[in-house]
Amino acid sequence: MTISSLKKAYKEKELTPRELMKQIQEKIEMHKENPIWIHVLSDAELEPYLAKLEKSDMASLPLYGIPFAIKDNIDLQGIPTTAGCPDYSYTPAKSAYVVECLINAGAIPVGKTNLDQFATGLVGTRSPYGACQNSINAEYISGGSSSGSAVSVALGMALFSLGTDTAGSGRVPAAFNNLVGVKPSKGILSTSGVVPACRSLDCVSIFAKDTEDARKVFDVAVSFDEADPYSRVMPQTQASMKSAFKFAVPKEEQLKFFGDSEAEELYKKAIARFERMGGIAVETDFSPMLEAANLLYYGPWVTERYVAVKEMIEERPESFMEVTKTIIASGKTKSAEDYFNAEYKLKAYKRQADMLMQNVDFALTPTTGTIYTIDEVNADPIALNSNLGYYTNFMNLLDFSAYAVPAGFRENAMPFGVTLFAAAFEDRKLMQFGEIFMSKDSDV
Amino acid sequence: MTISSLKKAYKEKELTPRELMKQIQEKIEMHKENPIWIHVLSDAELEPYLAKLEKSDMASLPLYGIPFAIKDNIDLQGIPTTAGCPDYSYTPAKSAYVVECLINAGAIPVGKTNLDQFATGLVGTRSPYGACQNSINAEYISGGSSSGSAVSVALGMALFSLGTDTAGSGRVPAAFNNLVGVKPSKGILSTSGVVPACRSLDCVSIFAKDTEDARKVFDVAVSFDEADPYSRVMPQTQASMKSAFKFAVPKEEQLKFFGDSEAEELYKKAIARFERMGGIAVETDFSPMLEAANLLYYGPWVTERYVAVKEMIEERPESFMEVTKTIIASGKTKSAEDYFNAEYKLKAYKRQADMLMQNVDFALTPTTGTIYTIDEVNADPIALNSNLGYYTNFMNLLDFSAYAVPAGFRENAMPFGVTLFAAAFEDRKLMQFGEIFMSKDSDV
Repeated sequence: MTISSLKKAYKEKELTPRELMKQIQEKIEMHKENPIWIHVLSDAELEPYLAKLEKSDMASLPLYGIPFAIKDNIDLQGIPTTAGCPDYSYTPAKSAYVVECLINAGAIPVGKTNLDQFATGLVGTRSPYGACQNSINAEYISGGSSSGSAVSVALGMALFSLGTDTAGSGRVPAAFNNLVGVKPSKGILSTSGVVPACRSLDCVSIFAKDTEDARKVFDVAVSFDEADPYSRVMPQTQASMKSAFKFAVPKEEQLKFFGDSEAEELYKKAIARFERMGGIAVETDFSPMLEAANLLYYGPWVTERYVAVKEMIEERPESFMEVTKTIIASGKTKSAEDYFNAEYKLKAYKRQADMLMQNVDFALTPTTGTIYTIDEVNADPIALNSNLGYYTNFMNLLDFSAYAVPAGFRENAMPFGVTLFAAAFEDRKLMQFGEIFMSKDSDV
Repeated sequence: MTISSLKKAYKEKELTPRELMKQIQEKIEMHKENPIWIHVLSDAELEPYLAKLEKSDMASLPLYGIPFAIKDNIDLQGIPTTAGCPDYSYTPAKSAYVVECLINAGAIPVGKTNLDQFATGLVGTRSPYGACQNSINAEYISGGSSSGSAVSVALGMALFSLGTDTAGSGRVPAAFNNLVGVKPSKGILSTSGVVPACRSLDCVSIFAKDTEDARKVFDVAVSFDEADPYSRVMPQTQASMKSAFKFAVPKEEQLKFFGDSEAEELYKKAIARFERMGGIAVETDFSPMLEAANLLYYGPWVTERYVAVKEMIEERPESFMEVTKTIIASGKTKSAEDYFNAEYKLKAYKRQADMLMQNVDFALTPTTGTIYTIDEVNADPIALNSNLGYYTNFMNLLDFSAYAVPAGFRENAMPFGVTLFAAAFEDRKLMQFGEIFMSKDSDV
């Protein structure tokens, strides 16, 4: 089921949004044991959306009747936002700007999804609502922090979903559930009505099964929001696909697969697939990216997480999970001196990285070097989480756009993914390359 | 004497650069009692520049034989850089990038000029080399921190000079010495080889007597510098002067002249002059600018000053002047939390300010509300300095381009100036408006 096939079904009266939502509710009920959802909309809560659609012109709404899931750090009017922390819960009077854009385009909210508490994690296990299980094998992690948003789409409970992505939360769960994950350029999707993780870095991200669906949602979601000081205007760029192109890959010794030789093979196959599409892989020194990545959790940006929940962490520390509390509280002790020293380093890495990126159309890395089981992560929650950010943590600090796409499966059926990234505002170009990569022809 | 008249004199063999430099040295000798210079190039130090010019093609060098002064926080190869602090002194092996651009274009360095220590001040009195006196009346301050750079040009010891401008140091001394002062968009003039004040905000600025000269120097000085992480590419913009235009002026109650009614009159005359040029003054709420200004010294950016000289202020505090030490040391105690809270505020002000600026071609304020004598500043060094930053402190925080131009004289012959400002990269548009403002025709 894709946006276009579903719209066709509506048009030909094979199905109504109301009927579809019933089917989805049944599917959600079937997977109840997996804590994908924090709140599923009741019939009464759904009714206004369905009623409004029934009075609307199908043709004029690009997302007419398309069900979508919302990570529970993004506001939906009248439904509690918990950010994965029950004590933090509040009920917003209006939806997040980006949610409003999607609903105005005809999309139907299914519910609010589970996440690593306060979007702090890449694993999907850091939630008092339970560890969200992978959509393919329940022993494996779903990836996080946008865990429920990814799994809900993978299991067909929504056609697309909204996540957030500060350190990699919109890409890691895509890779682990065989989805595409759009990590848009900072600021082109509004963060008004989103619980901040690191306000200066946060992005709203999009999960979908299909590149075309992702693009359709992206086109609706991109909208300048005056009220969000971090909002930026998406320039009108003409992304013209070239039949010959170059893409950067890290030097051999900069690749990390943490012993996952199948992932290494799949990454090499992805490179080969791009080469068959006319691409030239350019081995590139990724040091500026990898150094920048280190700044994210060891540098002062973690202070933004502290600032975002300061009152609660000071007054009700017991409301937090131990692991998220430890990370967030570490932001309290950083000085402005730490901040500026890190900013100066980051600026230098950014310049170096931009210079490297000038030689290529995009860069290609694994989305993650490996995947873990829930038990493995529970046994070593900080270190394994950190491994998963090796290829993701630098992205927003360096102001890149990124697109995570599926790139095959391991023997045990667990999926592998790669990420394409480029300068800010190159989102549409990345989506074009991703689309061709995923089309069957590219494997000829 | 302007760049074009001097080049004409060279071409017609009425004068040589060597002869001119002799005349300048005599003029410098005459004004010895005023601590304008920290280092004047000796004949031996000048010789390589003169010898090179004598072997060069006059026509191919846009600044052939044009003498210029360099604020002593900007490196000139082989000459000590003190930043107004003798103990800080070092002798750079190469010139600052922007100095090199100017010398490569034929300009001759005259020497290094006095400044408020570590560019911390708007007065010109905060120097162990002595308080630089105003070029018109020695009882008055020259303005700072680029004090010597402004006075040297005003007194004809150089045709132009380089200053720096973090809080207003490239504009205040322009206003006090009847000069134009270009405060370029951040990053379009390299800061490689410049002693940092606030690295994330510092700009190299240009003083000249004449708008045409300022533009010629600007055209040479603007050059992207890969090695400066804060360097930005100046977009190729077409600045087309409109005969009808709008300019923002602060609301009546937001104007501060500190009792200087003559300054108030001169500001009104400047508005009237722009109106005669076809401009429509739009009374605008300047709150976002004024709030942002408060962040500069009371917020975390002062920590950048501390980071820049940390080792020295910790190990040799006696090397500092009391006033600059107090200000710089205050940066030590700020937290990363302070930083991010200020960044969030600033981002909101920036959005509000940008929205206001969308309605107009530029904004017009006094450069300073008043001027003080050296005695007055010595009696109340912090508060009066702060008054002088009222219209200047927000400029770099809000990423504006600015152009300070002369706008008449008080009864006692002390000059008054106004500042035009607009979005980043609008520098050339501002210079066009400034040029017409200063042309005689505009007073018809």
